[in-house]
Amino acid sequence: MNDKSTTTGVSITRLISSDTAFDEQLSKVLAWDEAADHQVHEVVKDILSHVKGRGDAAILEYTQRFDSVDARSMAELEISQQRLIEALDKVTPEQKQALQTAADRVRSYHEKQIQSSWNYTEADGTVLGQQVVAMDRVGLYVPGGKAAYPSSVLMNAIPAKVAGVKELIMVVPTPKGEVNELVLAAAAISGVDRVFTIGGAQAVAALAYGSETVPAVDKIVGPGNIYVATAKREVFGTVGIDMIAGPSEILVICDGKTDPDWIAMDLFSQAEHDENAQSILISQDKQYLDQVQESIDKLLQTMERKDIIKASIEGRAAFIQVKDLSDAIAVSNRIAPEHLELSVEDPDALLPEIRHAGAIFMGRYTAEALGDYCAGPNHVLPTSGTARFSSPLGVYDFQKRSSIIKFSADGASEMGKVASILARGEGLTAHARSAEYRIKDES
Amino acid sequence: MNDKSTTTGVSITRLISSDTAFDEQLSKVLAWDEAADHQVHEVVKDILSHVKGRGDAAILEYTQRFDSVDARSMAELEISQQRLIEALDKVTPEQKQALQTAADRVRSYHEKQIQSSWNYTEADGTVLGQQVVAMDRVGLYVPGGKAAYPSSVLMNAIPAKVAGVKELIMVVPTPKGEVNELVLAAAAISGVDRVFTIGGAQAVAALAYGSETVPAVDKIVGPGNIYVATAKREVFGTVGIDMIAGPSEILVICDGKTDPDWIAMDLFSQAEHDENAQSILISQDKQYLDQVQESIDKLLQTMERKDIIKASIEGRAAFIQVKDLSDAIAVSNRIAPEHLELSVEDPDALLPEIRHAGAIFMGRYTAEALGDYCAGPNHVLPTSGTARFSSPLGVYDFQKRSSIIKFSADGASEMGKVASILARGEGLTAHARSAEYRIKDES
Repeated sequence: MNDKSTTTGVSITRLISSDTAFDEQLSKVLAWDEAADHQVHEVVKDILSHVKGRGDAAILEYTQRFDSVDARSMAELEISQQRLIEALDKVTPEQKQALQTAADRVRSYHEKQIQSSWNYTEADGTVLGQQVVAMDRVGLYVPGGKAAYPSSVLMNAIPAKVAGVKELIMVVPTPKGEVNELVLAAAAISGVDRVFTIGGAQAVAALAYGSETVPAVDKIVGPGNIYVATAKREVFGTVGIDMIAGPSEILVICDGKTDPDWIAMDLFSQAEHDENAQSILISQDKQYLDQVQESIDKLLQTMERKDIIKASIEGRAAFIQVKDLSDAIAVSNRIAPEHLELSVEDPDALLPEIRHAGAIFMGRYTAEALGDYCAGPNHVLPTSGTARFSSPLGVYDFQKRSSIIKFSADGASEMGKVASILARGEGLTAHARSAEYRIKDES
Repeated sequence: MNDKSTTTGVSITRLISSDTAFDEQLSKVLAWDEAADHQVHEVVKDILSHVKGRGDAAILEYTQRFDSVDARSMAELEISQQRLIEALDKVTPEQKQALQTAADRVRSYHEKQIQSSWNYTEADGTVLGQQVVAMDRVGLYVPGGKAAYPSSVLMNAIPAKVAGVKELIMVVPTPKGEVNELVLAAAAISGVDRVFTIGGAQAVAALAYGSETVPAVDKIVGPGNIYVATAKREVFGTVGIDMIAGPSEILVICDGKTDPDWIAMDLFSQAEHDENAQSILISQDKQYLDQVQESIDKLLQTMERKDIIKASIEGRAAFIQVKDLSDAIAVSNRIAPEHLELSVEDPDALLPEIRHAGAIFMGRYTAEALGDYCAGPNHVLPTSGTARFSSPLGVYDFQKRSSIIKFSADGASEMGKVASILARGEGLTAHARSAEYRIKDES
């Protein structure tokens, strides 16, 4: 059954997990094709090549053209540390305090992710291990205009600084010179080292290749529009990049005992991001699904972003009726959601069964929105089912490992024999002879 | 100075780090452009789409056509566990023992990389943490024909199994039905679960999308030719992939006191991989560089793969004369080599200064070739300077994290206030209201 509830207001896709066609219906609901736009790709390649070849001059021209900023030099496109600190006084005291509280919690959680170097010594004196170091320099892309999110600055910048990244360069476009004080305040609190008011593919190019003014970085993180995402894909290899995110999603598993208004609002909190965002509710209780539908119909009219929410819910949401909680978890593991809310009595009992999810929000009090801002864990999470093989952004993304191998003379002699046999088996005789030189004369 | 030594035999680029043009010269030596072949890309996209749409039938057709294998069904393209175990008796006892020793050492090293779940409880009862689980199913690509390396099977399969991956599916083409017994033996020893004798873009497609016979996996790892690499790039997002490797490189820093024949052979062991492999030697001792040149000229004629070695050394090798060891490390950090040999008296003194390297081989006895086969650490390493931001393959690549957030009623109330302020600052009022529902009535 794949009908749409059309009571009074919002039309929501309903599925039943025991239907024979369920798997196919679910696949259809989840289907998300990131449009690979050929024209965008050509434009981006052109911008990258100009910035690579002409540096500051090209960055300045693109910024003047695309952002309607009339700067005369790259120097005018840098925001000083002094200006960042001033932003802390331009936001309200409540906002400043909230940013500080959020930053402290995010820092404290991510400090638990720091990896350390280790090594061990074998009986013959051979030492093996790995040396962990932070990346030297990282670039953080922050969207400008309406989608400028200070929380995004905290979530990307703090793990990098906790990892020990020496220099964190932020880029944020300021269309028509419009600066977001909350974003600058978040940068000040997060310890961002330099800020340039550039954006788009030209900012990604500046970070990847470097220019006279913008230093080349080792990795670029942070969200952006299709030009930014395409540019990041293109420079991957020259620099590291974080994941390319799809639309945000939430999956709520509810036993039917949470206030339906709460759940409706939790679903809205994803839906309000954009029309492609996806909100899914799973319950064993058909009546409860109806109650949440009623809450949605009732609350929608009160929402500031009701048009986006309605389009998202009608286009991409789904209510799934399951047999029981165990069935709910099975469906959830099939979806591998970005955000998973376990709005149930005993979420701990379900946790061991959950194999794929970006972040798990446990219990009725844990609104997903708390995780977006101030719980502590990162809000940059794998979307579109990629939680099957990827993880939340973390300190791990800003540290890297080098393997350490130090053979003793005895160890090299013993292992040289093994390496020699295997190398000759592969026809790689220089490998074999290099190892054999270190085999001790048995006489 | 960027001349080529042209004594008797092999012509090697020589650089001096104090030359004013050094940085530019070095960039030229390191330049490596992975040819993005438009035609390959079109062929690969076509293969991917056929396998996605037609499954087994397409895989079978491509395998018949490209590998000259006359199988009539997919069932004939699966190798049984029994056949893998038989391979252990078809290789020599010495080879079997060497594989076993290597596997044991690789397993033992990688077991130290296992990450565990953790959580902590805050004063108000809020629980934060992360749950670490292995991926469900991983695909391992193993090249067939001349470049079939059993060591590659060990290095890719063992970390996956150590991580706890439940099902490891290996694909290996068998052109004209030619099976490599060492590869099958390595699969048996590593605990590979299923093996299909398919290769190329069609094998990548089979693993990414699944077919009637081949199960879809969550991540694909392992090396391959340009068709395989292009296919992996293309399916990235549907599944995870490991890095796309460039040509292999070694950088040897030598204080001038290691037998020059040893160093010449260490350089050869990279050069013999292929014409694009890169071998770089750095020393403060010009005479020593001359001695290694003499060893190269002397030893080259004795090498089985001398044509490949000569082409690689003449095309891409470099000898760099530096001021001292500290200068050597600076040049090495600039290069961020895949393999770094510290052939010096006290390598431990240099280690803290090394910021970027895939693997570090310490001391005169630690031939890089030992790391390729049996030292323990992985031989899949970041190439082409990507050690600036990436790491050796490891257990980390087969585990993933889910963030855990469980707010107590008190915690949700307090944090709801913070989230509300920040969400309203971003204009996301559904987020704000979702958090506000959990704020306790102060009365």
